[in-house]
Amino acid sequence: MSMKFTLLGVDRKTRARLGLLETPHGSFETPVFMPVGTQATVKAVSPEELKEIGVHILLSNTYHLYLRPGPEIVREAGGLHPFMHWDGSILTDSGGYQVFSLAPLRSIGEEGVEFRSHLDGSRHFFSPEKVMEIQEALGSDIAMVLDECPPYPADYAYVRESGERTLRWAARCKTAHRLDGQALFGIVQGGIYRDLREHSARTLAEMDFPGYGIGGLSVGEPKPLMYEMLEYVTPLLPADRPRYLMGVGAPEDLIEGIARGVDMFDCVLPTRLARHGSALVPWGRLNLRNQQYARDFRPLDENCTCYTCQHYSRAYLRHLIKAEELLVHRLLSIHNLHYLVRLMDGAREAIRQGNFSAYRQRFYENWKGEE
Amino acid sequence: MSMKFTLLGVDRKTRARLGLLETPHGSFETPVFMPVGTQATVKAVSPEELKEIGVHILLSNTYHLYLRPGPEIVREAGGLHPFMHWDGSILTDSGGYQVFSLAPLRSIGEEGVEFRSHLDGSRHFFSPEKVMEIQEALGSDIAMVLDECPPYPADYAYVRESGERTLRWAARCKTAHRLDGQALFGIVQGGIYRDLREHSARTLAEMDFPGYGIGGLSVGEPKPLMYEMLEYVTPLLPADRPRYLMGVGAPEDLIEGIARGVDMFDCVLPTRLARHGSALVPWGRLNLRNQQYARDFRPLDENCTCYTCQHYSRAYLRHLIKAEELLVHRLLSIHNLHYLVRLMDGAREAIRQGNFSAYRQRFYENWKGEE
Repeated sequence: MSMKFTLLGVDRKTRARLGLLETPHGSFETPVFMPVGTQATVKAVSPEELKEIGVHILLSNTYHLYLRPGPEIVREAGGLHPFMHWDGSILTDSGGYQVFSLAPLRSIGEEGVEFRSHLDGSRHFFSPEKVMEIQEALGSDIAMVLDECPPYPADYAYVRESGERTLRWAARCKTAHRLDGQALFGIVQGGIYRDLREHSARTLAEMDFPGYGIGGLSVGEPKPLMYEMLEYVTPLLPADRPRYLMGVGAPEDLIEGIARGVDMFDCVLPTRLARHGSALVPWGRLNLRNQQYARDFRPLDENCTCYTCQHYSRAYLRHLIKAEELLVHRLLSIHNLHYLVRLMDGAREAIRQGNFSAYRQRFYENWKGEE
Repeated sequence: MSMKFTLLGVDRKTRARLGLLETPHGSFETPVFMPVGTQATVKAVSPEELKEIGVHILLSNTYHLYLRPGPEIVREAGGLHPFMHWDGSILTDSGGYQVFSLAPLRSIGEEGVEFRSHLDGSRHFFSPEKVMEIQEALGSDIAMVLDECPPYPADYAYVRESGERTLRWAARCKTAHRLDGQALFGIVQGGIYRDLREHSARTLAEMDFPGYGIGGLSVGEPKPLMYEMLEYVTPLLPADRPRYLMGVGAPEDLIEGIARGVDMFDCVLPTRLARHGSALVPWGRLNLRNQQYARDFRPLDENCTCYTCQHYSRAYLRHLIKAEELLVHRLLSIHNLHYLVRLMDGAREAIRQGNFSAYRQRFYENWKGEE
C-alpha cells in the first residue's frame, strides 16, 4: 500500500482539520507532531520510549544520512526502519533545507545544487533525481521533493526565480520518483510574498501530489507573517491532501498552524531544549539550571503523566544537568516530546468536538511565556 | 532490617562461594557485580533498564555526591533511593579512594584528610566521622569505612603507616556509625605486602564488621600480584561475611576473584567502555569505531539476549558512534552490563553445581583478548 489520507472533519470556527493518515507503517490521526531523528535516532530516546509517548511518525534527514552512514549502508540494512529499529512511519526531507543552511560553498544551478559536506568539506551534488534515489534507499513512507529554501529576508526577484526553479525541480522529482509504497510531497515556497506563495501552492496543487509541505517559514520572519502566509496557502491546497508545515514546533506555532489548516509538523525543539536543560510545561519553559530548582522535589509538571514526571524531581534533573549526566537528555526529551504529543492529542479531541477555538484560548490562558 | 549474609555453599576445587545477601532493599545471590552510579545515575542507563538486565545492587560515590548535589539535598529527597528512583540495594563507598585519586592538594593527618574539590578547588575535610554522617544522609544499604588507598608502587614503611591509620579510622567509623538498616564494611589495605595485608585482614576480622572490602588493588600492580594478595587475604576473613573486591570489574578479574573467594565487585568498566565505543563479548572486546563494522549487520554477539543485541546491528551502533549520537552510550552500556551480569549468573550456577573450575576454563577457551 501507499499513503492514504482521509479528512475526518473540520472545526466549526477555525480551519483546524481532523484527518487520518495511513502509511505502510501504521495509521494515525492528524494534526500530528513528528519528532526529528536527524541521524536515524531521535537524540537520546529509544524507539520503545517514542511508542510509549504515543509517537507514530518520525522525520529523518536525508542530507545527514546521505553523508553518514551513506544511503547504500541504509539500503543494505533493509532501509531506515530496520536500521534504526523503528516500525512506525518515517518521513524523510529532501536535504534541500540542510544544504542551504548547513553546507558551505554551495552553488545552485538549474540542474541541482553543488555543496561541500559540513563534516569533511568533500564535494557533493544534489539533483531532484539524486534526492529521489537517496530517499528510495532510505525507504521512508513519505519523501519530499528537492526545494530551495530562500533565507529571510530575501528580495522578491530572488524568491520568484528560486520558487520557479523549485517548481521545476518538483516536476522532475515526480517524474523520477518510483518507489512503491512511498508517497512524495511537493513543497510550497514563496518566502513572505503572497502572490509567490499562492502561485507555488496553485502550481503544486495542479501537479497532484499526495501531500504538501509548506517550507521556508519559521526562518527568522516575525510570527504574524508566518501565520499570514499560512492563511494564503492552505485554502489553495486540495482539502483531501495532508499539509505539513516544515520545521515548525514551538507550542504556540502548532496551535496557530492547526487553526490555519495544517496537519503535520516537525521540529527539533523538544529534544534541543532538553539538551539545553529546559522543560516544556503548559505555562512556558522551566530552565532547570536555575538555582531555584536545587531543592525542588516536585516533578516538572504535577499534572504530567510522562515517565520523567512519574519518577524524577526537578532537584534530581537539575543535579543531572549540573553533573553533565547523559541520562538527563533522555529524561527531558521524553518529557518535552510527551508535552507536544499531548498538546496535539488535545487539539485533535477539540477539533473532533468542533471547539478548537476554546482549546486555543485555554492554551493561551495557561501560557505565561518563558522564564 | 539490616543486611544479612548467608553462605550457601563453596565450590569443590576452588574457593568460589555462593551466598545470599539480604538488604533492606532486596535480596540477591553472590558473587554479584555492582554497576557504578557515581553521581546517582548509572551513566546513560535507567533504573528500569538495570532491573531488566538483572541488576540488584548499585555502587554510588560518596565523594562525588558530597560535592554535588551535596548530602543535605539527598537527605531532603529522602535518601539516594527515592532521589535517583532506584529501589534496589545501594552500596556507597567512603570517598577515600576518590580523595586520593581525584582531588588535588590533599593532606592526610591522624584526624582525617583535607582536600580540594576537583570541581571548583574549594577546601574540604573528610574524617571517619564525617564520611559516616554523609553516608547516613545518602541512606545507602551498605556503607564503607574511610580508608587511605596507597598508590602503586608505594614503599613498605609508607604502606604500613598508612595501613595502621586506616585501621584506626575503621574503628572510629564503627563507633560513629549509627544508621539503622545500614551495614558498615571494613576495608583491607596493605598494598602488595603480604604481612601488611594479613595484619589488616586479621585486625578487621577481630573488629567484627558485617562485611569486608578489599581495597588498594587493581591500582597498577601486575594482575598476578593482585590475585596473590587475594589468596592471602580471603582465608583470614570470616567465612560468614561477604567480601567485596573494590573497583575490580575486568571479566578475567571477576573470574579470578571469584575463584579466590570474593563475593562482590564493582567497576566503571562496562559503562566507560561503552562511552569509548567498545563492547564486551565472550571472546574479548569489539571496538566499533573500526571500519570493518560499517556494513556488519549482525548484532554485537549473536548469542546475547540483551535489548541492544535483540534490535540493533554493529553497523547501526557504529553509525551512532561516528555521528556522536547519545543513544549509543545507552545501547552499549546495556550490552556491557548485561554481559557482566550474565557472566556472574553463570559463575553462581557453576558454583552451585560445584564445578566453577570448568566454568573458568570455558571462559578462557572463548577469550581471545582485545582487538
